Amino acid sequence: MRIVAFQKDDAAAIGVRLDETVVDLSIAAPNLPSTLRGLLIADALSAAAEAAAGAGSNAHLEYGALDLLPPISDPPKILCVGRNYAEHAKEGGAEVPAYPDIFMRSRLSLVGAGQPIIRPPVSTQLDFEGELMAVIGAPVHRANETQAVAAVAGYSVFNDATLRDYQRRTGQWTVGKNFDGTGAFGPEFVTADEVTPGAEGLRLQTRLNGQVMQDANTDDMVFSVATALSIISEAMSLEPGDLLATGTPSGVGYARTPPVWMKPGDTVEVEIEGIGTLRNPVEDDAS
Amino acid sequence: MRIVAFQKDDAAAIGVRLDETVVDLSIAAPNLPSTLRGLLIADALSAAAEAAAGAGSNAHLEYGALDLLPPISDPPKILCVGRNYAEHAKEGGAEVPAYPDIFMRSRLSLVGAGQPIIRPPVSTQLDFEGELMAVIGAPVHRANETQAVAAVAGYSVFNDATLRDYQRRTGQWTVGKNFDGTGAFGPEFVTADEVTPGAEGLRLQTRLNGQVMQDANTDDMVFSVATALSIISEAMSLEPGDLLATGTPSGVGYARTPPVWMKPGDTVEVEIEGIGTLRNPVEDDAS
Repeated sequence: MRIVAFQKDDAAAIGVRLDETVVDLSIAAPNLPSTLRGLLIADALSAAAEAAAGAGSNAHLEYGALDLLPPISDPPKILCVGRNYAEHAKEGGAEVPAYPDIFMRSRLSLVGAGQPIIRPPVSTQLDFEGELMAVIGAPVHRANETQAVAAVAGYSVFNDATLRDYQRRTGQWTVGKNFDGTGAFGPEFVTADEVTPGAEGLRLQTRLNGQVMQDANTDDMVFSVATALSIISEAMSLEPGDLLATGTPSGVGYARTPPVWMKPGDTVEVEIEGIGTLRNPVEDDAS
Repeated sequence: MRIVAFQKDDAAAIGVRLDETVVDLSIAAPNLPSTLRGLLIADALSAAAEAAAGAGSNAHLEYGALDLLPPISDPPKILCVGRNYAEHAKEGGAEVPAYPDIFMRSRLSLVGAGQPIIRPPVSTQLDFEGELMAVIGAPVHRANETQAVAAVAGYSVFNDATLRDYQRRTGQWTVGKNFDGTGAFGPEFVTADEVTPGAEGLRLQTRLNGQVMQDANTDDMVFSVATALSIISEAMSLEPGDLLATGTPSGVGYARTPPVWMKPGDTVEVEIEGIGTLRNPVEDDAS
């Protein structure tokens, strides 16, 4: 099953995508929670699937006409793994880590598919980072790898866009990773049963204005989804709606000669085999 | 005004503290939001104060009998400044930073005053860090220092307890700073009008089993509340309920010879002049 979040009048709604149609769950299943995080907390994914299958045409919307939002806009936490592909660690002059580099994002840094990634007025060093996103569906603490991957409800695509100069101002990357409107997330949430176990063996490609910039496979991760979640859960409880951005492969803009930065007018796409293509324009901050 | 959050039957409630009495706002003002974050979003602090002043004795509870919770349990984000006192940076062998080191915590790492700080089974290197906590009350983005400090609704006390070995496993401190039940926060939220502007010039002391371990003044911060928030807000929007932990002075356990770690049976106190004393026992994880 594929779930999207979208703007409906002045609020957010969720729906089940069936090819080019989306079943609006606010019409087809008004008694279900109105957010994907709510569905996960209520363990109601199968109820949503049933409602979508039985929905009348009055609940059907055209997928291409929707203004998509991040599949989850209110994650309790957004954990991100740095330097999680060996070739990317090397292009940045770093060793392959023996323990995952973890940083956090906040929800206000997120945008949905099709929404602009924002270049702030204070920096031009806006870089792309195509990534696999894992979405936690069940509470888990001190999980082994099998338990950890079983707690993943599904996957999506992430562009961990980064202001490189701000990332490097100190040892902690938080500020450069948390500019408003830089973390593109979507287009949709794909349940784990539609993907290989642990989302392993999937091709990941990032294209800037149609040119391939990153081309790798999720098998190249230093810490797999299962391993990263198991290690993290040794310290902290994970809960439904938590997100794990699993790091980016080599080919980012700053490591190129000369560096390539995203700029207004650009279109950036991240595609992961079987999960989807996340496409965003880049705009200067207009506020 | 001083606001506490506390356990009431199976739920959380908030109240206004008047000396040894707390006015239960769920009784005195049932139409107001039921959390401090909600009060801040609704700009309803003065309504809470009025309700407390006019409350009948049926809304009065004994402060000392309450099971306190973190004043805010659902902060949108918890930002923490590292190495923000020059003497603490030096005791760790680091330079005084030219730009703030920012990391994030998640809400599940928080505990209230009186609740145990948890030592996990995987590490004995549990260290204390007494800190001033600032609570954001109004949305703010790209604020100058005057605007930034005007957006602070009030202050509290924080113990940024850290698993030092996990903090140092990689360059990113996130894991060592996010073990469940390590971030003690409270006992109460104190509105900014009861404190010096920017909470400057306040003595901060941390005591472990009654022995003074940290003794400093908030004037010793490298980046004041106003400066840190102004810098952070250049990148990210701040919103009501966001928290800023402002870093710890020198005297932490790891920098001592021999190192001093917190252990089960200990009691740790962080006291900030005019704001309060945060007291927590230390326990081994029982789960």
